[in-house]
Amino acid sequence: MTADSLIPELRLDRPASLARAISVVENARPGFEALLSGIHGRLGRAQRIGITGPPGAGKSTLTHELASACRARGLTVAIVAVDPTSPFTGGALLGDRIRMEAVALDPGVFIRSMATRGSLGGLAMATREVCDLLDAAGFDRILIETVGVGQSELDVAGMADSTVLVMVPESGDGIQTLKSGVMEIADLFVVNKADRPGADKLQHEIEVALGLRKGNAFRRIKAHHGVSLKKAGAAIPVEPDGGSAWDPPVLLASASQGEGIAPILDALDRHFGVMTDSGELAERRRRRLVRRTREVVNRAVDRWLWRETAAESMIGAQAMDMMAGRVSPYEVAAQVLARLKEGGTA
Amino acid sequence: MTADSLIPELRLDRPASLARAISVVENARPGFEALLSGIHGRLGRAQRIGITGPPGAGKSTLTHELASACRARGLTVAIVAVDPTSPFTGGALLGDRIRMEAVALDPGVFIRSMATRGSLGGLAMATREVCDLLDAAGFDRILIETVGVGQSELDVAGMADSTVLVMVPESGDGIQTLKSGVMEIADLFVVNKADRPGADKLQHEIEVALGLRKGNAFRRIKAHHGVSLKKAGAAIPVEPDGGSAWDPPVLLASASQGEGIAPILDALDRHFGVMTDSGELAERRRRRLVRRTREVVNRAVDRWLWRETAAESMIGAQAMDMMAGRVSPYEVAAQVLARLKEGGTA
Repeated sequence: MTADSLIPELRLDRPASLARAISVVENARPGFEALLSGIHGRLGRAQRIGITGPPGAGKSTLTHELASACRARGLTVAIVAVDPTSPFTGGALLGDRIRMEAVALDPGVFIRSMATRGSLGGLAMATREVCDLLDAAGFDRILIETVGVGQSELDVAGMADSTVLVMVPESGDGIQTLKSGVMEIADLFVVNKADRPGADKLQHEIEVALGLRKGNAFRRIKAHHGVSLKKAGAAIPVEPDGGSAWDPPVLLASASQGEGIAPILDALDRHFGVMTDSGELAERRRRRLVRRTREVVNRAVDRWLWRETAAESMIGAQAMDMMAGRVSPYEVAAQVLARLKEGGTA
Repeated sequence: MTADSLIPELRLDRPASLARAISVVENARPGFEALLSGIHGRLGRAQRIGITGPPGAGKSTLTHELASACRARGLTVAIVAVDPTSPFTGGALLGDRIRMEAVALDPGVFIRSMATRGSLGGLAMATREVCDLLDAAGFDRILIETVGVGQSELDVAGMADSTVLVMVPESGDGIQTLKSGVMEIADLFVVNKADRPGADKLQHEIEVALGLRKGNAFRRIKAHHGVSLKKAGAAIPVEPDGGSAWDPPVLLASASQGEGIAPILDALDRHFGVMTDSGELAERRRRRLVRRTREVVNRAVDRWLWRETAAESMIGAQAMDMMAGRVSPYEVAAQVLARLKEGGTA
């Protein structure tokens, strides 16, 4: 059976085929690109929602609750939990994982963990491709939850239509996160564990910080529409702009008690609507597609370079000379590149 | 002034020139590869020592103490602190950094933090190249301390001649780390904060785990020397092997009190000696150089691909067709690759 024979099998009621297709893509098995190429025309139906935030913010529980709430509204949901497995904190989140499997008894929910270290092209890329499979299969919502910490969170968040940043009071991360540039990627803020002291304060801090950011977003939108700005100063007050600008709301929730979930879904729906109407969704998806294509090109070139050209043997043949200091890695690289420019034949 | 005019300036007594050369390399400024290529013949004098472990293990303090102890022995030291800056925990380690700057008053110590996110070719690669500059400048020891958590720690550790894994009692990471494969990279274990309860227990746990690992290392060495093995079973007892095998010691220390530091340096010296005598050092450096050359090739090819070929314009020209689902990123990538095979001209 070839990988692309799985294409017609990518359906909500075929979870086993879907799981098989995901394995093919995750492990870059033969034909995985033909499979992905074959479903390209079917993409774009699902809303992709990224859920990110510092460790301990309750992302898994919130994701689980959002999935249940989607189901209650008659929507099918796929959950992709991305864990750029730290070698030191590896399995620490197993508890969450197991708790989440409970939803999996519902056939309208599909759950997948991604933790392929060193997958061809990286974890973020594999995650995007798995989301494509889920989109093609017909899920209404894809919730992409990042578990680890780091740049990979940003990479993952960058693949979503809407990104939810989850924070908690008392974590001490508050002000730090606000400064870090993570805010820039959030379309929606959730202050989780809102029954704890300090929730209102954190909500307020985020809103203050957003005041500045909204000013920037507003400037960007105006500039985009060719409206010149009278002030280029720091904090321009936000002007309501007929719905074309989106003001990221800051919502309180207590996911472990199932509180505050519906308003989050409502806000996500509103965000999707605003983005669709303003053309921002199409623009975001176009940028994403171009970035994505660059990654696919990089992966294809990498494979060509190391499997079909003389690069590897040129390095091997000069290893001893490099060790002796007679030739440098940079000179060898220049030779390899010169060969590629002639078409890369060995 | 061109970058390679810095080559003769790379000397212990020229910290300002060294700092400038490092900036050139870190930021991939024009001529950085000529600079690195020009010093290649001077490399190999320094001992490169990686210091890794989970957050809170006291790596910064230990690194600082090791540097002081090296100085007391008349050795010059460079410290490279690598922080793959998490967007969520970004500046948390500033305290440590500032504390460490104290050693910097000593002209025999050079300290550099590496935190370039998204540097050309990645942080690990930039770190390796900076270590080359420090090696060429003549430092006796280069201490490479990883601050963050994750795969990048392993990448960084993989560039050292000797790798120290620092752990602490009570952290709960003990058994997890032992399982995670991180152990495989360690040449030396330090149980830090050894005045705390549980230090002996952790030391014992590591030694038990090493029993298995030594068996494996022993098998590998035997196989390498063409000696057939009578048993291929799991836990082969360790046989002393005339010094050709290295048994990673597990040392207790209390870095914040300056205790247990000298035995670590002694063990590192022994390790370096054993590796030199057995040929393992040369072999390790050869493998590292080949891996490194592959990275340099990848970076050069990437630059060529996106700056000199038609790849970017081919993607741009088909963005709308991709959006409409008429052509997939995989088909576009195949076109780009076909063009490259003809020499990549636009």
